[in-house]
Amino acid sequence: MADYRVPLKDMSFLLFDVFKADAMWQQLPKLAENVDKDTAEAILQECAKIAEQEIAPISQQGHETGVSFNHGDVTTAPGFKDAFNTYVEGGWPALGGDPQYGGMGMPKILTAQHEEMLCSADISFTLYPVLTAGAALSLAKHGSEELKQRYLTRMYAGDWSASMCLTESHAGSDLGIIRTKAIPQDDGSYSITGSKIFITGGEHDLTENIVHLVLAKLPDAPAGPRGISLFLVPKFHVNDDETLGERNNVSCGSIEHKMGINASATCVMNFDGAKGYLIGELNKGLACMFTMMNFERIGVGIQGLGAAVRSYQNALEYAKDRLQGKAATGLKNIGKEADSIMVHGDVRRMLLNMKALNEGSRALSTYIAMQLDYATYGEGEQQAKGEALAALMTPLAKAFFTDLGFENTVTGQQVFGGHGFIREWGQEQLVRDARITQIYEGTNGIQAMDLLARKVVGSKGQLMQVFIDEMRAYINENQNDNMQEFIEPLTTAVDDLVELSDYLLEKSTHNVNEIGAAANDYLHVFGYTAMAFVWAKMAAVALAKQATGDDFYESKLKTARYYFTRLLPRRISLIASAKSGCDVLFDIDDDLF
Amino acid sequence: MADYRVPLKDMSFLLFDVFKADAMWQQLPKLAENVDKDTAEAILQECAKIAEQEIAPISQQGHETGVSFNHGDVTTAPGFKDAFNTYVEGGWPALGGDPQYGGMGMPKILTAQHEEMLCSADISFTLYPVLTAGAALSLAKHGSEELKQRYLTRMYAGDWSASMCLTESHAGSDLGIIRTKAIPQDDGSYSITGSKIFITGGEHDLTENIVHLVLAKLPDAPAGPRGISLFLVPKFHVNDDETLGERNNVSCGSIEHKMGINASATCVMNFDGAKGYLIGELNKGLACMFTMMNFERIGVGIQGLGAAVRSYQNALEYAKDRLQGKAATGLKNIGKEADSIMVHGDVRRMLLNMKALNEGSRALSTYIAMQLDYATYGEGEQQAKGEALAALMTPLAKAFFTDLGFENTVTGQQVFGGHGFIREWGQEQLVRDARITQIYEGTNGIQAMDLLARKVVGSKGQLMQVFIDEMRAYINENQNDNMQEFIEPLTTAVDDLVELSDYLLEKSTHNVNEIGAAANDYLHVFGYTAMAFVWAKMAAVALAKQATGDDFYESKLKTARYYFTRLLPRRISLIASAKSGCDVLFDIDDDLF
Repeated sequence: MADYRVPLKDMSFLLFDVFKADAMWQQLPKLAENVDKDTAEAILQECAKIAEQEIAPISQQGHETGVSFNHGDVTTAPGFKDAFNTYVEGGWPALGGDPQYGGMGMPKILTAQHEEMLCSADISFTLYPVLTAGAALSLAKHGSEELKQRYLTRMYAGDWSASMCLTESHAGSDLGIIRTKAIPQDDGSYSITGSKIFITGGEHDLTENIVHLVLAKLPDAPAGPRGISLFLVPKFHVNDDETLGERNNVSCGSIEHKMGINASATCVMNFDGAKGYLIGELNKGLACMFTMMNFERIGVGIQGLGAAVRSYQNALEYAKDRLQGKAATGLKNIGKEADSIMVHGDVRRMLLNMKALNEGSRALSTYIAMQLDYATYGEGEQQAKGEALAALMTPLAKAFFTDLGFENTVTGQQVFGGHGFIREWGQEQLVRDARITQIYEGTNGIQAMDLLARKVVGSKGQLMQVFIDEMRAYINENQNDNMQEFIEPLTTAVDDLVELSDYLLEKSTHNVNEIGAAANDYLHVFGYTAMAFVWAKMAAVALAKQATGDDFYESKLKTARYYFTRLLPRRISLIASAKSGCDVLFDIDDDLF
Repeated sequence: MADYRVPLKDMSFLLFDVFKADAMWQQLPKLAENVDKDTAEAILQECAKIAEQEIAPISQQGHETGVSFNHGDVTTAPGFKDAFNTYVEGGWPALGGDPQYGGMGMPKILTAQHEEMLCSADISFTLYPVLTAGAALSLAKHGSEELKQRYLTRMYAGDWSASMCLTESHAGSDLGIIRTKAIPQDDGSYSITGSKIFITGGEHDLTENIVHLVLAKLPDAPAGPRGISLFLVPKFHVNDDETLGERNNVSCGSIEHKMGINASATCVMNFDGAKGYLIGELNKGLACMFTMMNFERIGVGIQGLGAAVRSYQNALEYAKDRLQGKAATGLKNIGKEADSIMVHGDVRRMLLNMKALNEGSRALSTYIAMQLDYATYGEGEQQAKGEALAALMTPLAKAFFTDLGFENTVTGQQVFGGHGFIREWGQEQLVRDARITQIYEGTNGIQAMDLLARKVVGSKGQLMQVFIDEMRAYINENQNDNMQEFIEPLTTAVDDLVELSDYLLEKSTHNVNEIGAAANDYLHVFGYTAMAFVWAKMAAVALAKQATGDDFYESKLKTARYYFTRLLPRRISLIASAKSGCDVLFDIDDDLF
């Protein structure tokens, strides 16, 4: 397997040339005090070192060894503890945290690049800190001052990690029907009883304490999602002097044996009258969770991207090294018996698919992260616009990047031929690890419904209009000869997206099943169109910088052409399918399947 | 995991209602003496029993345990030996074999269904007998009478198995540059020396002897593919009295650790002056191999289908059982807290995608198997047509069915949500097993080149014309009101395929790189069009039988509508991509990737 190399140049290009992150930071006082371009570049370089040198090297061993379970204890794979300690010593758990409690206050547009690096290095490892960061977000926004002083500071310090305990075996994504109970106690705490499954990092040996955020219902709570509350349940009680006390009544019952992310502990967590503390208001638990969700969901999208980037790097190195067959135009490798497989059109197609989709996903995730930053740190109209775009594009980020991420890991495996199937080459791990990203944190089908039903139809098209307006403005500003090859197909794609959105808005008023029938195709039409928008932006910068003679811009421009020529057309069939209506889905009885 | 149930009714529908296999058999004397409808039905029923009751139950254990290697010996997973013995006792290794040497002489159209059942039950298990059957084909056609009497009879009896030793580590699919040497000996045999990798069933404990078919080159052989010869190298020498003699100088050096098909032994085979016997003529080894290839490649296509069928059955059972969420139109499951997930449009989409693509693949593979039978058993014009269609559609079968098979196993896993990722539920095994089918026996990229470069461009469109003529004739015969909903889109698809083929034929005369650039998209355009053709045929029969009131035909008709409405449009984007030209692939230097 190729050594992982962080695409720092592309990250810097996106942050500062394409999206002008430094200008945004200067505009937003809460960010201006924490970050500028030099700081950001230094952070990315330091983070690259840890990803390349500490985390990437333990990935394959983690895949082969996995985590082990013994009487409630979970032992992580060889090297994980050392790498985690190095990560903590570098101060990374604090990166995106609230400065009031020891966080570094870095914007999402920067932590998103940080997450990508970690995930390219190893998704399993990354899950331990990112789950903690997600829980910290929720706690920072909704927790009491006491809880924040006691727990949040230690999570930022990396002493303690966290888990998110939502799913129950009978309920899956239908949180309204969870059964975990919270009984109010005289001291203001709650006694939590129930069993949760699929809890990432629910138990492990990396930190001395684990802070569980748990969804549960009071006995007299309203039925359904409006009766859910959020509780903080520590693995070990915390004494008033901040030392650890006795073990709380929470334990890991077993771990799952999975297709991938073998080195991530996926736990069954049993709460047996465990002491918990309310976060936020009673029965408002889902809202507290959703604070975290938008950040986590784009994070899961970035996991898919991370695996795909690694797969591309490996596949490219293999394709350049592998001598087999001859060019269609005759042997190029004079004096040798075969050419490298780079001469074959279909191999180039696979590599360019990966390159164009990965770089497009990175650009689009950077754009969406920027909207989250406007929503968090902006004011007035700017904030409102950021919120609208973040709400609209969060499900897109999660589902689109993971669908493409999985596709790209499979493509990268295919480049290796038979060796791609052999474990020692590392490509099959990426496929297996990436696969979960399409499933957890809400399946991609659920994301598609969130996008079309809640965000597009739910806002009567208003959220989508915000994005359409932005793309139209960009198109109008870039009507020039050089950009025409990109602006023209982008315009068509935007027109078609508007037309499809209107079509579905209208149709769904007659039959609500039209939404579920079209949702998955719609999400992908939206995705390819939004990706065309960011590819046009990248092409514009590359055109402007082409005169520098730097190959990077030449490569960017040609990859943009590839995207518009060969990948954007995918939307055409998707539109046809999205418009085909719900009858063919619902006019067939369940018994006839 | 659901119990596997063989889709016997669909198989019978295809054989006798859609493709009139019994009429074909009566027409062809060499088949008429061996098989009729009753025999065929009995064979399928018996085979279903062994697939459902003997092979399916050992699949999951095989995945978890895998094969083990110890000083050159390979031990198969628990239960494999018993299941294999039962398979042999049933006489199944002889099914498609030459009756002169103890085979049953059954046509491919029937053995294809048999292979699908076995693969749905377990691909790993199935590889042991199907590799043997493939080698037997080659031996039956090209081996000397002595070799056939000595080896073929025992392979049909199931006493001995076989392996195909082609790949070498440096050469992969580029067989022209293999290095294994064959030195002629005074006794007319050859001394074989070299190392082969990725040898399925190269060593195991299921049979007392293993017959290796090995590609090697004589010291003075012409360079490249025209210097390759084929040799039979037994694991144990065979004495003149047919007892086993000493061990030959062939051994298993190691086995691979893979993403899937864990219970199939993938071996490194070392030949160290092993005694081998020439099959066919010197330097004509590739031709002898290709006898087997057409049968094997459609077989690999059917492996992909087999895994997908199993995945569909599991996913359907899960979707019906799983109560979660509510219908968009309001709770249907009165008195319960949730509906089954069958109410969700996107779940129905996933299941119907699988159903329509699986049934379409089964129909198309049956059609192609029929062409192989005409090619093998037919005469005159009928044989020539069978040969043309088999040659054209073999790469299609291999690549299209395995790409769809993998897609469908992934889709079936997605229906399970988080449980799909957990090993005990069985869905992830199907994904991992199906994945290899896109890679081995020539990657799907190589198949796409075989189709477009060799078969379509190579014949100047003549092979394709044979198929186009057949589809046009069918269209002309079915111009009636009932069939219009299928005939109209089929006509458009055929017109577009013709136009695309002509376009690429013309373009490739200017630049041969246009072929490699378009090959993968072209194969899929062809596939969806051919599948529309067989779906139209199925719909016609279902319409004619609708009056019987049998739900089977109702289901078939609605699935046909689903295919034409939601899946056939996939070809539109593929055509756009196939026509986009090779410049975006080749105008970017390797260094810019």
